[in-house]
Amino acid sequence: MTAANISAQPPGAEQQPSEGVAHLSVGILGGTGPQGRGLAVRLAAAGQRVLLGSRDTERVAWVSAEVTERAQSVAADGVRARVRGGSNRDVAEAADLVVVAVPFAGHAGTLAPLAGPLTGKIVVDCVVPMAFDRQGPYVLDVPEGSVAQQAAALLPKSTVVGAFHHLSAVLLEDLSHTLDGDVMVVGDDRAATDTVRALAGRLTGLRGVYAGRLRNARQVEALTVNLVSVNRRYKAHAGVRITDV
Amino acid sequence: MTAANISAQPPGAEQQPSEGVAHLSVGILGGTGPQGRGLAVRLAAAGQRVLLGSRDTERVAWVSAEVTERAQSVAADGVRARVRGGSNRDVAEAADLVVVAVPFAGHAGTLAPLAGPLTGKIVVDCVVPMAFDRQGPYVLDVPEGSVAQQAAALLPKSTVVGAFHHLSAVLLEDLSHTLDGDVMVVGDDRAATDTVRALAGRLTGLRGVYAGRLRNARQVEALTVNLVSVNRRYKAHAGVRITDV
Repeated sequence: MTAANISAQPPGAEQQPSEGVAHLSVGILGGTGPQGRGLAVRLAAAGQRVLLGSRDTERVAWVSAEVTERAQSVAADGVRARVRGGSNRDVAEAADLVVVAVPFAGHAGTLAPLAGPLTGKIVVDCVVPMAFDRQGPYVLDVPEGSVAQQAAALLPKSTVVGAFHHLSAVLLEDLSHTLDGDVMVVGDDRAATDTVRALAGRLTGLRGVYAGRLRNARQVEALTVNLVSVNRRYKAHAGVRITDV
Repeated sequence: MTAANISAQPPGAEQQPSEGVAHLSVGILGGTGPQGRGLAVRLAAAGQRVLLGSRDTERVAWVSAEVTERAQSVAADGVRARVRGGSNRDVAEAADLVVVAVPFAGHAGTLAPLAGPLTGKIVVDCVVPMAFDRQGPYVLDVPEGSVAQQAAALLPKSTVVGAFHHLSAVLLEDLSHTLDGDVMVVGDDRAATDTVRALAGRLTGLRGVYAGRLRNARQVEALTVNLVSVNRRYKAHAGVRITDV
Protein backbone atom coordinates (compact mmCIF):
# COMPACT_ATOMS: atom_id res chain seq x y z
CA MET A 1 0.00 0.00 0.00
CA THR A 2 1.54 3.30 -1.04
CA ALA A 3 0.25 6.79 -0.44
CA ALA A 4 -0.89 6.90 -4.06
CA ASN A 5 -3.24 3.99 -3.45
CA ILE A 6 -5.03 5.84 -0.71
CA SER A 7 -6.92 7.89 -3.27
CA ALA A 8 -7.85 4.89 -5.38
CA GLN A 9 -11.53 4.05 -5.63
CA PRO A 10 -12.59 0.74 -4.13
CA PRO A 11 -12.87 -1.95 -6.78
CA GLY A 12 -15.88 -3.55 -8.38
CA ALA A 13 -19.23 -3.32 -6.70
CA GLU A 14 -17.99 -0.65 -4.33
CA GLN A 15 -17.47 1.98 -7.04
CA GLN A 16 -19.30 5.23 -6.46
CA PRO A 17 -22.45 5.49 -8.61
CA SER A 18 -22.29 9.27 -8.42
CA GLU A 19 -24.37 9.77 -11.58
CA GLY A 20 -27.29 8.16 -9.78
CA VAL A 21 -27.63 11.04 -7.34
CA ALA A 22 -27.07 13.99 -9.68
CA HIS A 23 -30.81 14.60 -9.97
CA LEU A 24 -31.46 14.79 -6.22
CA SER A 25 -32.17 18.13 -4.62
CA VAL A 26 -30.25 18.39 -1.36
CA GLY A 27 -31.77 20.35 1.49
CA ILE A 28 -29.44 21.64 4.18
CA LEU A 29 -30.99 22.46 7.55
CA GLY A 30 -28.87 25.03 9.32
CA GLY A 31 -27.60 26.11 5.95
CA THR A 32 -26.27 29.49 7.06
CA GLY A 33 -23.72 28.02 9.51
CA PRO A 34 -20.15 27.38 8.34
CA GLN A 35 -20.59 23.61 7.81
CA GLY A 36 -23.90 23.99 5.98
CA ARG A 37 -22.60 26.82 3.83
CA GLY A 38 -19.41 24.91 3.04
CA LEU A 39 -21.28 21.78 1.97
CA ALA A 40 -23.72 23.92 -0.03
CA VAL A 41 -21.08 25.72 -2.05
CA ARG A 42 -19.25 22.48 -2.88
CA LEU A 43 -22.43 20.60 -3.80
CA ALA A 44 -23.72 23.49 -5.91
CA ALA A 45 -20.38 23.80 -7.70
CA ALA A 46 -20.68 20.08 -8.53
CA GLY A 47 -24.09 20.77 -10.13
CA GLN A 48 -26.28 19.49 -7.32
CA ARG A 49 -29.49 21.44 -6.67
CA VAL A 50 -29.25 22.82 -3.13
CA LEU A 51 -32.00 24.13 -0.87
CA LEU A 52 -30.63 26.08 2.07
CA GLY A 53 -32.80 26.07 5.19
CA SER A 54 -32.62 28.34 8.20
CA ARG A 55 -34.72 29.73 11.01
CA ASP A 56 -33.73 33.16 9.68
CA THR A 57 -35.32 33.34 6.23
CA GLU A 58 -34.02 36.83 5.55
CA ARG A 59 -30.43 35.83 6.21
CA VAL A 60 -30.76 32.58 4.26
CA ALA A 61 -31.86 34.47 1.14
CA TRP A 62 -28.71 36.56 1.36
CA VAL A 63 -26.46 33.54 2.01
CA SER A 64 -28.06 31.57 -0.83
CA ALA A 65 -27.27 34.31 -3.33
CA GLU A 66 -23.70 34.48 -2.07
CA VAL A 67 -23.28 30.68 -2.21
CA THR A 68 -24.71 30.60 -5.76
CA GLU A 69 -22.25 33.22 -6.91
CA ARG A 70 -19.25 31.55 -5.31
CA ALA A 71 -20.23 28.08 -6.55
CA GLN A 72 -20.75 29.38 -10.08
CA SER A 73 -17.29 30.99 -10.06
CA VAL A 74 -15.63 27.57 -9.77
CA ALA A 75 -18.20 25.33 -11.50
CA ALA A 76 -17.14 23.44 -14.62
CA ASP A 77 -18.32 24.72 -18.01
CA GLY A 78 -21.98 23.93 -18.53
CA VAL A 79 -22.72 23.49 -14.84
CA ARG A 80 -25.21 25.96 -13.42
CA ALA A 81 -25.07 26.53 -9.67
CA ARG A 82 -28.60 26.25 -8.24
CA VAL A 83 -29.12 27.32 -4.63
CA ARG A 84 -32.37 28.52 -3.09
CA GLY A 85 -33.04 29.56 0.49
CA GLY A 86 -36.08 29.09 2.69
CA SER A 87 -37.31 28.07 6.10
CA ASN A 88 -36.18 24.72 7.46
CA ARG A 89 -39.77 23.49 7.02
CA ASP A 90 -40.00 24.59 3.37
CA VAL A 91 -36.67 22.94 2.66
CA ALA A 92 -37.64 19.73 4.49
CA GLU A 93 -40.79 19.57 2.36
CA ALA A 94 -39.20 20.36 -0.98
CA ALA A 95 -35.85 18.54 -0.87
CA ASP A 96 -35.34 14.94 -2.01
CA LEU A 97 -32.69 14.37 0.66
CA VAL A 98 -31.87 16.50 3.69
CA VAL A 99 -28.58 17.20 5.47
CA VAL A 100 -28.77 18.31 9.11
CA ALA A 101 -26.04 20.86 9.87
CA VAL A 102 -27.43 22.77 12.83
CA PRO A 103 -25.47 23.21 16.07
CA PHE A 104 -26.00 20.30 18.48
CA ALA A 105 -27.89 22.58 20.87
CA GLY A 106 -30.55 23.08 18.18
CA HIS A 107 -30.61 19.51 16.88
CA ALA A 108 -33.64 17.99 18.60
CA GLY A 109 -35.62 21.23 18.48
CA THR A 110 -35.07 21.59 14.74
CA LEU A 111 -35.91 18.00 13.81
CA ALA A 112 -38.89 17.20 16.08
CA PRO A 113 -41.41 19.41 14.22
CA LEU A 114 -40.15 18.17 10.81
CA ALA A 115 -40.98 14.47 11.22
CA GLY A 116 -43.95 14.94 8.88
CA PRO A 117 -42.23 16.61 5.92
CA LEU A 118 -39.17 14.35 6.28
CA THR A 119 -41.23 11.13 6.10
CA GLY A 120 -39.80 8.71 3.55
CA LYS A 121 -36.65 10.76 2.99
CA ILE A 122 -32.99 10.16 3.66
CA VAL A 123 -31.77 12.43 6.45
CA VAL A 124 -28.00 12.84 6.62
CA ASP A 125 -26.82 13.95 10.03
CA CYS A 126 -23.41 15.63 10.31
CA VAL A 127 -23.91 17.20 13.73
CA VAL A 128 -21.14 16.75 16.31
CA PRO A 129 -21.91 16.73 20.05
CA MET A 130 -18.92 18.83 21.10
CA ALA A 131 -18.23 21.49 23.68
CA PHE A 132 -15.14 23.32 24.97
CA ASP A 133 -13.75 24.09 28.38
CA ARG A 134 -10.35 25.23 29.68
CA GLN A 135 -8.82 21.87 28.66
CA GLY A 136 -10.08 22.11 25.10
CA PRO A 137 -12.76 20.18 23.22
CA TYR A 138 -14.76 17.31 24.66
CA VAL A 139 -17.70 15.10 23.72
CA LEU A 140 -21.20 15.76 25.01
CA ASP A 141 -23.31 12.81 26.07
CA VAL A 142 -26.36 12.14 23.92
CA PRO A 143 -29.06 10.12 25.68
CA GLU A 144 -29.84 8.16 22.50
CA GLY A 145 -26.16 7.17 22.14
CA SER A 146 -25.32 9.47 19.25
CA VAL A 147 -26.74 12.48 17.45
CA ALA A 148 -27.66 10.28 14.48
CA GLN A 149 -29.58 7.92 16.76
CA GLN A 150 -31.33 10.93 18.29
CA ALA A 151 -32.40 11.93 14.77
CA ALA A 152 -33.63 8.39 14.10
CA ALA A 153 -35.69 8.48 17.31
CA LEU A 154 -37.24 11.84 16.36
CA LEU A 155 -37.83 10.88 12.71
CA PRO A 156 -39.14 7.30 12.85
CA LYS A 157 -40.39 7.43 9.25
CA SER A 158 -37.15 8.77 7.76
CA THR A 159 -33.95 6.89 6.96
CA VAL A 160 -31.15 8.44 8.99
CA VAL A 161 -27.53 8.21 7.86
CA GLY A 162 -24.52 9.75 9.62
CA ALA A 163 -21.87 11.37 7.39
CA PHE A 164 -19.80 14.51 6.63
CA HIS A 165 -18.59 14.97 10.23
CA HIS A 166 -14.88 15.23 9.50
CA LEU A 167 -14.82 17.90 6.82
CA SER A 168 -13.27 21.18 7.88
CA ALA A 169 -15.75 24.02 7.29
CA VAL A 170 -12.79 26.29 6.60
CA LEU A 171 -11.53 24.05 3.79
CA LEU A 172 -15.04 23.45 2.42
CA GLU A 173 -15.50 27.18 2.05
CA ASP A 174 -12.01 27.80 0.63
CA LEU A 175 -12.71 27.04 -3.01
CA SER A 176 -9.01 27.36 -3.90
CA HIS A 177 -8.43 24.24 -1.79
CA THR A 178 -8.86 20.78 -3.29
CA LEU A 179 -10.62 18.59 -0.76
CA ASP A 180 -8.81 15.48 0.43
CA GLY A 181 -10.51 12.98 2.67
CA ASP A 182 -12.91 10.13 3.18
CA VAL A 183 -16.47 10.64 4.33
CA MET A 184 -17.32 7.89 6.83
CA VAL A 185 -20.93 6.90 6.21
CA VAL A 186 -22.88 5.03 8.92
CA GLY A 187 -26.39 3.71 8.70
CA ASP A 188 -28.61 0.65 8.74
CA ASP A 189 -30.12 0.93 5.25
CA ARG A 190 -27.84 -0.21 2.45
CA ALA A 191 -29.52 1.81 -0.32
CA ALA A 192 -29.44 4.97 1.81
CA THR A 193 -25.77 4.61 2.75
CA ASP A 194 -24.96 3.93 -0.92
CA THR A 195 -26.80 7.12 -1.91
CA VAL A 196 -24.91 9.18 0.67
CA ARG A 197 -21.60 7.63 -0.36
CA ALA A 198 -22.41 8.63 -3.93
CA LEU A 199 -23.28 12.15 -2.81
CA ALA A 200 -19.92 12.43 -1.04
CA GLY A 201 -18.24 11.23 -4.23
CA ARG A 202 -19.75 14.19 -6.11
CA LEU A 203 -17.30 16.44 -4.27
CA THR A 204 -13.91 16.26 -5.98
CA GLY A 205 -11.27 14.77 -3.69
CA LEU A 206 -13.76 13.11 -1.37
CA ARG A 207 -14.86 9.51 -1.23
CA GLY A 208 -17.74 8.00 0.69
CA VAL A 209 -16.76 4.92 2.70
CA TYR A 210 -19.31 2.72 4.45
CA ALA A 211 -18.23 2.61 8.09
CA GLY A 212 -20.82 0.61 9.99
CA ARG A 213 -24.30 0.65 11.46
CA LEU A 214 -26.04 3.58 13.10
CA ARG A 215 -25.31 2.16 16.54
CA ASN A 216 -21.66 2.84 15.74
CA ALA A 217 -22.26 6.50 14.82
CA ARG A 218 -21.18 7.85 18.19
CA GLN A 219 -17.46 7.46 17.76
CA VAL A 220 -17.54 8.75 14.18
CA GLU A 221 -19.24 11.92 15.42
CA ALA A 222 -16.96 12.18 18.44
CA LEU A 223 -13.75 11.69 16.47
CA THR A 224 -14.27 15.26 15.27
CA VAL A 225 -13.24 16.32 18.78
CA ASN A 226 -9.90 14.59 18.26
CA LEU A 227 -9.49 16.26 14.87
CA VAL A 228 -9.99 19.62 16.60
CA SER A 229 -7.18 18.61 18.99
CA VAL A 230 -5.02 17.74 15.99
CA ASN A 231 -5.84 21.12 14.43
CA ARG A 232 -4.76 22.95 17.58
CA ARG A 233 -1.50 21.06 17.96
CA TYR A 234 -0.45 21.05 14.30
CA LYS A 235 -2.13 24.27 13.11
CA ALA A 236 -3.96 22.18 10.53
CA HIS A 237 -7.43 21.47 9.19
CA ALA A 238 -7.31 17.74 9.75
CA GLY A 239 -9.48 15.16 8.07
CA VAL A 240 -9.46 11.38 7.77
CA ARG A 241 -8.46 8.85 5.12
CA ILE A 242 -9.22 5.16 5.48
CA THR A 243 -6.28 3.08 4.28
CA ASP A 244 -6.45 -0.23 2.38
CA VAL A 245 -9.84 0.48 0.74
CA MET B 1 -3.12 18.71 -0.58
CA THR B 2 -2.38 15.72 -2.78
CA ALA B 3 -2.31 12.07 -1.84
CA ALA B 4 1.48 12.21 -1.84
CA ASN B 5 1.42 14.76 0.96
CA ILE B 6 -0.45 12.41 3.23
CA SER B 7 2.74 10.53 3.99
CA ALA B 8 4.75 13.67 4.64
CA GLN B 9 6.07 14.18 8.15
CA PRO B 10 4.68 17.13 10.05
CA PRO B 11 6.95 20.13 9.79
CA GLY B 12 9.35 21.69 12.27
CA ALA B 13 8.81 21.04 15.93
CA GLU B 14 6.44 18.18 15.26
CA GLN B 15 9.06 15.94 13.66
CA GLN B 16 9.40 12.52 15.20
CA PRO B 17 12.40 12.27 17.52
CA SER B 18 12.55 8.52 16.97
CA GLU B 19 16.22 8.26 17.92
CA GLY B 20 15.29 9.37 21.43
CA VAL B 21 13.36 6.19 22.14
CA ALA B 22 15.68 3.61 20.56
CA HIS B 23 17.17 2.72 23.95
CA LEU B 24 13.83 1.98 25.65
CA SER B 25 12.86 -1.59 26.38
CA VAL B 26 9.21 -2.09 25.50
CA GLY B 27 7.17 -4.52 27.53
CA ILE B 28 4.01 -5.92 25.97
CA LEU B 29 1.38 -7.30 28.35
CA GLY B 30 -0.71 -9.87 26.54
CA GLY B 31 2.20 -10.40 24.20
CA THR B 32 1.06 -13.76 22.86
CA GLY B 33 -2.18 -12.38 21.35
CA PRO B 34 -2.24 -11.28 17.70
CA GLN B 35 -1.97 -7.53 18.43
CA GLY B 36 0.82 -7.96 20.97
CA ARG B 37 2.72 -10.39 18.77
CA GLY B 38 2.31 -8.12 15.74
CA LEU B 39 3.62 -5.06 17.58
CA ALA B 40 6.45 -7.13 19.03
CA VAL B 41 7.73 -8.41 15.71
CA ARG B 42 7.65 -4.94 14.14
CA LEU B 43 9.33 -3.26 17.11
CA ALA B 44 11.99 -5.95 17.36
CA ALA B 45 12.68 -5.73 13.64
CA ALA B 46 13.22 -1.99 14.13
CA GLY B 47 15.83 -2.77 16.78
CA GLN B 48 13.73 -2.04 19.87
CA ARG B 49 14.29 -4.35 22.84
CA VAL B 50 10.99 -6.15 23.48
CA LEU B 51 9.83 -7.99 26.60
CA LEU B 52 6.79 -10.15 25.93
CA GLY B 53 4.52 -10.73 28.90
CA SER B 54 1.82 -13.35 29.34
CA ARG B 55 -0.07 -15.27 31.99
CA ASP B 56 1.19 -18.39 30.23
CA THR B 57 4.97 -18.29 30.69
CA GLU B 58 5.55 -21.53 28.84
CA ARG B 59 3.73 -20.29 25.77
CA VAL B 60 5.36 -16.87 25.90
CA ALA B 61 8.84 -18.44 25.78
CA TRP B 62 7.85 -20.24 22.60
CA VAL B 63 6.26 -17.14 21.05
CA SER B 64 9.26 -14.97 21.95
CA ALA B 65 11.64 -17.30 20.15
CA GLU B 66 9.36 -17.29 17.11
CA VAL B 67 9.02 -13.49 17.14
CA THR B 68 12.79 -13.08 17.45
CA GLU B 69 13.38 -15.32 14.46
CA ARG B 70 10.79 -13.59 12.31
CA ALA B 71 11.94 -10.09 13.30
CA GLN B 72 15.56 -10.99 12.58
CA SER B 73 14.64 -12.26 9.12
CA VAL B 74 13.52 -8.78 8.05
CA ALA B 75 15.74 -6.57 10.24
CA ALA B 76 18.19 -4.22 8.56
CA ASP B 77 21.89 -5.14 8.48
CA GLY B 78 23.43 -4.65 11.90
CA VAL B 79 20.12 -4.74 13.77
CA ARG B 80 19.77 -7.59 16.22
CA ALA B 81 16.23 -8.61 17.15
CA ARG B 82 15.95 -8.82 20.93
CA VAL B 83 12.80 -10.40 22.37
CA ARG B 84 12.45 -12.07 25.75
CA GLY B 85 9.37 -13.61 27.31
CA GLY B 86 8.17 -13.68 30.90
CA SER B 87 5.22 -13.25 33.19
CA ASN B 88 3.27 -10.00 32.93
CA ARG B 89 4.70 -9.05 36.36
CA ASP B 90 8.31 -9.71 35.36
CA VAL B 91 7.81 -7.68 32.21
CA ALA B 92 6.07 -4.82 34.06
CA GLU B 93 9.03 -4.69 36.44
CA ALA B 94 11.79 -4.88 33.84
CA ALA B 95 10.49 -2.80 30.94
CA ASP B 96 11.07 0.94 30.56
CA LEU B 97 7.68 1.42 28.90
CA VAL B 98 4.76 -1.00 28.76
CA VAL B 99 2.12 -1.62 26.09
CA VAL B 100 -1.17 -3.21 27.21
CA ALA B 101 -2.47 -5.57 24.52
CA VAL B 102 -4.67 -7.96 26.48
CA PRO B 103 -8.30 -8.63 25.52
CA PHE B 104 -10.70 -6.10 27.10
CA ALA B 105 -12.16 -8.84 29.30
CA GLY B 106 -8.76 -9.23 30.97
CA HIS B 107 -7.84 -5.54 31.09
CA ALA B 108 -8.69 -4.53 34.64
CA GLY B 109 -7.66 -7.90 36.07
CA THR B 110 -4.26 -7.73 34.41
CA LEU B 111 -3.45 -4.14 35.40
CA ALA B 112 -4.76 -3.92 38.97
CA PRO B 113 -2.02 -6.09 40.53
CA LEU B 114 0.70 -4.33 38.49
CA ALA B 115 0.23 -0.80 39.86
CA GLY B 116 3.41 -1.21 41.92
CA PRO B 117 5.84 -2.34 39.22
CA LEU B 118 4.33 0.12 36.71
CA THR B 119 4.85 3.12 39.01
CA GLY B 120 6.59 5.98 37.21
CA LYS B 121 6.33 4.31 33.80
CA ILE B 122 4.53 5.16 30.60
CA VAL B 123 1.72 2.67 30.01
CA VAL B 124 0.44 2.59 26.43
CA ASP B 125 -3.05 1.16 26.19
CA CYS B 126 -4.19 -0.21 22.81
CA VAL B 127 -7.13 -2.25 24.09
CA VAL B 128 -10.47 -1.89 22.29
CA PRO B 129 -13.79 -2.41 24.13
CA MET B 130 -15.51 -4.34 21.35
CA ALA B 131 -17.92 -7.23 21.12
CA PHE B 132 -19.92 -8.91 18.34
CA ASP B 133 -23.52 -9.97 17.93
CA ARG B 134 -25.68 -10.95 14.95
CA GLN B 135 -25.50 -7.37 13.64
CA GLY B 136 -21.73 -7.26 13.73
CA PRO B 137 -19.29 -5.39 15.95
CA TYR B 138 -20.30 -2.91 18.64
CA VAL B 139 -18.71 -0.89 21.42
CA LEU B 140 -18.78 -2.03 25.04
CA ASP B 141 -19.42 0.55 27.72
CA VAL B 142 -16.51 1.22 30.06
CA PRO B 143 -17.53 2.74 33.39
CA GLU B 144 -14.46 5.02 33.44
CA GLY B 145 -15.35 6.38 29.96
CA SER B 146 -12.65 4.55 28.03
CA VAL B 147 -10.23 1.68 28.47
CA ALA B 148 -7.35 4.15 28.74
CA GLN B 149 -9.15 6.00 31.53
CA GLN B 150 -9.76 2.68 33.26
CA ALA B 151 -6.01 2.05 33.10
CA ALA B 152 -5.33 5.52 34.51
CA ALA B 153 -7.73 4.83 37.39
CA LEU B 154 -6.03 1.50 38.17
CA LEU B 155 -2.50 2.86 37.77
CA PRO B 156 -2.56 6.26 39.50
CA LYS B 157 1.25 6.46 39.62
CA SER B 158 1.79 5.63 35.94
CA THR B 159 1.39 7.89 32.90
CA VAL B 160 -1.25 6.35 30.65
CA VAL B 161 -1.31 7.04 26.92
CA GLY B 162 -3.77 5.59 24.39
CA ALA B 163 -2.31 4.51 21.02
CA PHE B 164 -1.94 1.69 18.44
CA HIS B 165 -5.68 0.88 18.31
CA HIS B 166 -6.11 1.04 14.55
CA LEU B 167 -3.34 -1.26 13.36
CA SER B 168 -4.51 -4.49 11.81
CA ALA B 169 -2.93 -7.43 13.63
CA VAL B 170 -2.99 -9.32 10.34
CA LEU B 171 -0.91 -6.65 8.60
CA LEU B 172 1.41 -6.20 11.59
CA GLU B 173 2.24 -9.88 11.45
CA ASP B 174 2.57 -10.00 7.66
CA LEU B 175 6.17 -8.85 7.34
CA SER B 176 5.92 -8.73 3.54
CA HIS B 177 3.43 -5.86 3.99
CA THR B 178 4.66 -2.29 4.38
CA LEU B 179 2.59 -0.60 7.06
CA ASP B 180 0.64 2.49 6.09
CA GLY B 181 -1.19 4.56 8.66
CA ASP B 182 -1.20 7.07 11.44
CA VAL B 183 -1.15 6.10 15.09
CA MET B 184 -3.51 8.40 16.98
CA VAL B 185 -1.90 9.13 20.35
CA VAL B 186 -4.03 10.48 23.22
CA GLY B 187 -2.87 11.49 26.66
CA ASP B 188 -2.51 14.31 29.15
CA ASP B 189 1.28 14.35 29.50
CA ARG B 190 3.13 16.05 26.66
CA ALA B 191 6.45 14.25 27.18
CA ALA B 192 4.71 10.86 27.34
CA THR B 193 2.66 11.42 24.19
CA ASP B 194 5.80 12.63 22.41
CA THR B 195 7.61 9.44 23.47
CA VAL B 196 4.79 7.25 22.19
CA ARG B 197 4.60 9.20 18.93
CA ALA B 198 8.30 8.60 18.53
CA LEU B 199 7.86 4.90 19.25
CA ALA B 200 5.17 4.69 16.56
CA GLY B 201 7.56 6.44 14.17
CA ARG B 202 10.08 3.61 14.69
CA LEU B 203 7.80 1.36 12.63
CA THR B 204 8.35 2.05 8.93
CA GLY B 205 5.24 3.48 7.29
CA LEU B 206 3.64 4.62 10.53
CA ARG B 207 3.52 8.05 12.07
CA GLY B 208 2.45 9.05 15.55
CA VAL B 209 -0.04 11.92 15.61
CA TYR B 210 -1.12 13.64 18.82
CA ALA B 211 -4.91 13.40 18.89
CA GLY B 212 -6.10 14.89 22.15
CA ARG B 213 -6.42 14.34 25.87
CA LEU B 214 -7.14 11.09 27.65
CA ARG B 215 -10.78 12.11 28.15
CA ASN B 216 -11.07 11.88 24.37
CA ALA B 217 -9.68 8.33 24.19
CA ARG B 218 -13.08 6.67 24.01
CA GLN B 219 -13.84 7.44 20.39
CA VAL B 220 -10.31 6.62 19.27
CA GLU B 221 -10.67 3.18 20.83
CA ALA B 222 -14.22 2.76 19.54
CA LEU B 223 -13.38 3.78 15.97
CA THR B 224 -11.76 0.35 15.67
CA VAL B 225 -15.30 -1.04 15.60
CA ASN B 226 -15.99 1.03 12.49
CA LEU B 227 -12.76 -0.14 10.89
CA VAL B 228 -13.94 -3.72 11.45
CA SER B 229 -17.15 -2.77 9.62
CA VAL B 230 -15.05 -1.33 6.80
CA ASN B 231 -13.03 -4.54 6.68
CA ARG B 232 -16.17 -6.65 6.38
CA ARG B 233 -17.71 -4.53 3.63
CA TYR B 234 -14.56 -3.95 1.57
CA LYS B 235 -12.63 -7.14 2.39
CA ALA B 236 -9.81 -4.93 3.64
CA HIS B 237 -7.53 -4.38 6.62
CA ALA B 238 -8.45 -0.76 7.13
CA GLY B 239 -6.42 1.80 9.01
CA VAL B 240 -6.49 5.57 9.37
CA ARG B 241 -4.53 8.49 7.97
CA ILE B 242 -4.97 12.02 9.26
CA THR B 243 -4.92 14.50 6.40
CA ASP B 244 -3.38 18.00 6.40
CA VAL B 245 -0.72 17.20 9.04
